[in-house]
Amino acid sequence: MAGNSTEPKHYAILLFEGFQALDVFGPLDALNITSLDNGIKLSIIAPTLNPVSTKPPPLPIVNLKPGWGFSESVVPTHSYDDLPTDIDVLIVPGGLGTSHCANIEPTVKLARKLYPEVKYLFSICTGSKVLAEAGLLDGKKATTNKRRYEETTRPYPQVQWQRSARWVIDGNIWTSSGISAGTDAMLAFIGMVYGREYAQAIAKRMEYRWVEDPTDDPFAAPEPSSTRGPESAYASPTSHVDLGSEGK
Amino acid sequence: MAGNSTEPKHYAILLFEGFQALDVFGPLDALNITSLDNGIKLSIIAPTLNPVSTKPPPLPIVNLKPGWGFSESVVPTHSYDDLPTDIDVLIVPGGLGTSHCANIEPTVKLARKLYPEVKYLFSICTGSKVLAEAGLLDGKKATTNKRRYEETTRPYPQVQWQRSARWVIDGNIWTSSGISAGTDAMLAFIGMVYGREYAQAIAKRMEYRWVEDPTDDPFAAPEPSSTRGPESAYASPTSHVDLGSEGK
Repeated sequence: MAGNSTEPKHYAILLFEGFQALDVFGPLDALNITSLDNGIKLSIIAPTLNPVSTKPPPLPIVNLKPGWGFSESVVPTHSYDDLPTDIDVLIVPGGLGTSHCANIEPTVKLARKLYPEVKYLFSICTGSKVLAEAGLLDGKKATTNKRRYEETTRPYPQVQWQRSARWVIDGNIWTSSGISAGTDAMLAFIGMVYGREYAQAIAKRMEYRWVEDPTDDPFAAPEPSSTRGPESAYASPTSHVDLGSEGK
Repeated sequence: MAGNSTEPKHYAILLFEGFQALDVFGPLDALNITSLDNGIKLSIIAPTLNPVSTKPPPLPIVNLKPGWGFSESVVPTHSYDDLPTDIDVLIVPGGLGTSHCANIEPTVKLARKLYPEVKYLFSICTGSKVLAEAGLLDGKKATTNKRRYEETTRPYPQVQWQRSARWVIDGNIWTSSGISAGTDAMLAFIGMVYGREYAQAIAKRMEYRWVEDPTDDPFAAPEPSSTRGPESAYASPTSHVDLGSEGK
């Protein structure tokens, strides 16, 4: 693909305790592969330089089972207090950690601070809650995780939330739906930068069934009047999961 | 879902420099969510306790572009020399690092050592090269990354390689196809352990379009006689990518 001087070169992701692993590593792996052809770089920014874990901080909604020991920790390249410069694309994942307002407050502040300096803002799943809390989605169309749709969107009526969308683009802000939707959206972003055929080739390399149509959303949040119906696809298999999961 | 005493409780993944991020985090995120309902634990085993990177070691087939700085590092819980006990499920990812025999030799030896002690062995992508090199796939059906199919399978004619399969189960060994196929296979594994409905619910939480049929493989490796055809879906968009990528 032909490179050009305006294409994004520097991607940065904001982590916090309790980020969702696949929110991060679906999009980043698409970019990892893209990086083999393109001189792009990644900054991984966390509250401190200590590794940051997918394990959420203590949350009233999470009731971890005894013996729980399932999490992964990622090494940051920068801290919130010592930022890299010249970020082109700022990526904000979601995860159980977004359920705890104090936990994401530093991330909210940092997103608000960095947004005027970046070319693109990109969120996955409940990462859009961070953007909404920062006021960056006011008056804009956006989407989010569909299982936690009501509670994520309710506090932010000034956002034009989309119940049915795999991802939404409004200006230079891309918001994607739950977890794996971030991979679809990042492939679309790669397509915008390098061309559709290149994005399709990346998807093939990932052996990923990429659906290119952002309106094709099998997980769309039902209208409120129908959410209590017995046929809802969003019913939990166990009541425990309803209590404990990021709706994922 | 009803738990039982024979269900796997301890999952362990073997990392090496140059592992493919999504090989690891697709399956692990499905398990991360499963862990919210089930008392399971994860060990992340790397050559040393130092963080291990998706960046491959210097490889003759990789020609990284100037400015390349795209990789993520994960923190191990154990080293190859100080292993956890009682592993039920041993997971081996693929990635560019498998192209370097010396790089994966310790992983090959460790997989060979651990296999007799585990209940299940599970590989993603070119992770099956590690298993084949360890002799664990001799006489068995298995699959692998479809873009690097020929070079991955050729040295191991004693394996019954499957050109068309999203994943393959032979005895207690599960091998999956390239990168994102690991997520589909792990969902099937979760379905085996906790029931199909539970696996479907996990896929919905991930907003992942899970195709449950392991024979439905849109990325199947063409027979050798047809690989040079102009309509091959496996052609690279650029010659550089052919040189530089793990076929992904």
